[in-house]
Amino acid sequence: MDGSRIEDVGRARSLIEAGDFAGLAEFVAPLHSADLADILQQLEVEQQVQVLKRLDTGRAAEVLAELDEKSGSTVLQLLSDREVVALLEELPSDDAADLMSTLGPEKTERVEALLPRADREDIQELLEFGSETAGGLMQVERVAVRDDATVQDAIGVVRAAAAAQVESPQRVYVVSESGELVGFMGTIDLVLRTPETRVRDVMERNVVSVPVDMDQEQVAALFSRYNEFVMPVVDTANRLVGRITMDDIIDVIEEEASKDITRMAGTSDQEIGETSVFKVARTRLPWLVIGFLGEIVGAVLMSRYEASLAEFVVLVFFIPLIVATAGNTGMQAAVVVVREIALGQVAINRIGRRVFKELQVAFLNGMALGAMLFAIVYVWRHNAALGGLLWGSLLLVIFVAALMGSSIPLVLNRFKVDPAVAAGPFITVSNDVIGIAIYLTLASAYLRAH
Amino acid sequence: MDGSRIEDVGRARSLIEAGDFAGLAEFVAPLHSADLADILQQLEVEQQVQVLKRLDTGRAAEVLAELDEKSGSTVLQLLSDREVVALLEELPSDDAADLMSTLGPEKTERVEALLPRADREDIQELLEFGSETAGGLMQVERVAVRDDATVQDAIGVVRAAAAAQVESPQRVYVVSESGELVGFMGTIDLVLRTPETRVRDVMERNVVSVPVDMDQEQVAALFSRYNEFVMPVVDTANRLVGRITMDDIIDVIEEEASKDITRMAGTSDQEIGETSVFKVARTRLPWLVIGFLGEIVGAVLMSRYEASLAEFVVLVFFIPLIVATAGNTGMQAAVVVVREIALGQVAINRIGRRVFKELQVAFLNGMALGAMLFAIVYVWRHNAALGGLLWGSLLLVIFVAALMGSSIPLVLNRFKVDPAVAAGPFITVSNDVIGIAIYLTLASAYLRAH
Repeated sequence: MDGSRIEDVGRARSLIEAGDFAGLAEFVAPLHSADLADILQQLEVEQQVQVLKRLDTGRAAEVLAELDEKSGSTVLQLLSDREVVALLEELPSDDAADLMSTLGPEKTERVEALLPRADREDIQELLEFGSETAGGLMQVERVAVRDDATVQDAIGVVRAAAAAQVESPQRVYVVSESGELVGFMGTIDLVLRTPETRVRDVMERNVVSVPVDMDQEQVAALFSRYNEFVMPVVDTANRLVGRITMDDIIDVIEEEASKDITRMAGTSDQEIGETSVFKVARTRLPWLVIGFLGEIVGAVLMSRYEASLAEFVVLVFFIPLIVATAGNTGMQAAVVVVREIALGQVAINRIGRRVFKELQVAFLNGMALGAMLFAIVYVWRHNAALGGLLWGSLLLVIFVAALMGSSIPLVLNRFKVDPAVAAGPFITVSNDVIGIAIYLTLASAYLRAH
Repeated sequence: MDGSRIEDVGRARSLIEAGDFAGLAEFVAPLHSADLADILQQLEVEQQVQVLKRLDTGRAAEVLAELDEKSGSTVLQLLSDREVVALLEELPSDDAADLMSTLGPEKTERVEALLPRADREDIQELLEFGSETAGGLMQVERVAVRDDATVQDAIGVVRAAAAAQVESPQRVYVVSESGELVGFMGTIDLVLRTPETRVRDVMERNVVSVPVDMDQEQVAALFSRYNEFVMPVVDTANRLVGRITMDDIIDVIEEEASKDITRMAGTSDQEIGETSVFKVARTRLPWLVIGFLGEIVGAVLMSRYEASLAEFVVLVFFIPLIVATAGNTGMQAAVVVVREIALGQVAINRIGRRVFKELQVAFLNGMALGAMLFAIVYVWRHNAALGGLLWGSLLLVIFVAALMGSSIPLVLNRFKVDPAVAAGPFITVSNDVIGIAIYLTLASAYLRAH
């Protein structure tokens, strides 16, 4: 939020407090709904309601849809059932269903009773789909004609959809008698064709559609791949059941990126914007405990070499270095592989080749870092044998880290587990423990030899 | 790439090898350009050229725009200058400029000489903008009318744009006599208004525009915020210079997420899909070296306590645990803050509050893990004093890690440095060194006391 927005919040607040609702109406009139929603979120909930009540219903619904889920839900609780119904009727079915899902069981029941039957059925249908599937993203507004309709009929459908404020009505889907999706027409095609033509004679038959149960991440990949602004959603019988618009896909892509990034760091995107310190701490603790327990195993491993380490404590100085370098290598490999999987750039038949590339990179960087370490140890401790031991250990540990960092996400993905979940703390802690084990094994062999 | 796509590649290859170009044309006809581009990328470059030459120019241009940059550039090198010109003329100006930028200076000069002057000037203009700015994303196809034009004129502009295959022509921008952007009209509005009306009397005046030098990440945030499918780009005098369509924004969002994720892990999104092992190794090595040098500092620190550590080697066992837990805590804090910054959810006037929240979380989790560690050490080594030392050290180290993990990205962002760059290896290695220093300082105080 930049400076001018903070001023806007102050201005809105003082207008409300002064009871100057004419001034308030004038002030908010030129604002975009998204900006107005931003301002509202800085106000007290009673003030939010006062502003919303001064907007016409269409505008109020738009602003409501832009509020974050928590604020939207709080505001709705303070409105009467009739006011809620009026707002829901103004919204596209997907936004209406999202708001409905925050109402709580009692209010939902009362509001449903007041909704026109068609709207109620649409919303109930949408609420049955998983929120992270195509069904959860779609709106039921279909913008469709039968294949025996004329171009003139199709234009009528676009006009009606536009008049009803349906988003992106510029593509009309064509369905068969049984509701099967068979093609589409763009508004531009509609304008250029003779009105009496039958759509089935001029429609585009190659239509990319989305199965209603497809995961939202795959849906986003389809949008990105085909550069579409709107895509039709079909059920298992290829019947048209709804549409997804690209603006919802942008949210999905941002959400999926947040998920990947936070999971790899051992937490969850749930905590973004979470204000409860306890909830945040509880989200993070399990991952910290996993890392903690791994390092306890490391400590026990080290205790087995207690006598050797006490005698030759210089070995200890390099344990953090070995462990951290392995961790960094594993993380680099894991992150790139996870991202390539997310962008659909890893061929499933080329896992071996992908891992082999990481091993080559690890060899190059392991040799370079190992040589540096040898030189530093030689200058510092005048001990070439120790330098050699460290070079070899570092190379081996980096090699194992790269192998694990690249192969674990690929294997998880193959078994349909989100590769980002395990890529972070799991790989880091495994690398630490394995690194300590490799290093101490080599070191004790070295001590026996000297 | 799934199984059916692999079969398609085999089919295309055998049709080309058999010289069955009629069969090839029939096979590729129903494929979406993006899918065909995918298949082409698995073929030899000569085979790619053979397929492209069999498509009509418009289709070939679409497929070319879908190829990755490297493949597209290789194919263009094998085509004659005239063929390249024919393809560029079919493409939107932004895609044409992108392809042009891969041609190399000599071929660029020859191709430019053959292009119609208007196209040449458009492309040259676009190539002058930074590739990661609004100017680099936009196309110069403006789809605009003067404010004294009629609705009928505006409809003519949409038709002409649609006939010229301009993407998303459904919004007509309205400019003043001096080219200033003053409003817009949707195609739906055009259809619903009387043809003779002047656009300035019916246009929407609240138009959100993008400055031509705005960074692409901010442009993506605007699209995401306002849910727009197409946005006008203006120069410093508010003159309309081009348009950005949402399909290009999806690529930006994915690219920015890749950048953040890879930077935090100490590498770069440049290496995604990079096939040269040497280039990948060179991208990663600097970050590994930074981590390496930090750990050398840690080793030197430890060597100052050589005698104490040799005498009381049990202290050493917990160094990896202290260091790893600090690293994980710092990473959790950093990642969430970086993501909140990317999504525009951190208010610049609330940095102190944000960091304080992390410290509270750190306190809760530090107490929990410290208590676990105390219990483990007490059971294992029957030493309550050592357990207490470790509890205190862990808590303090976690505290410092949370402070650094959350404040460094916020401070970098304030100074306009990408917070993701430093969030990864820099925070991790600082935490390691500071963690070792804190632990050994406390431990030596403890040893002196016992």
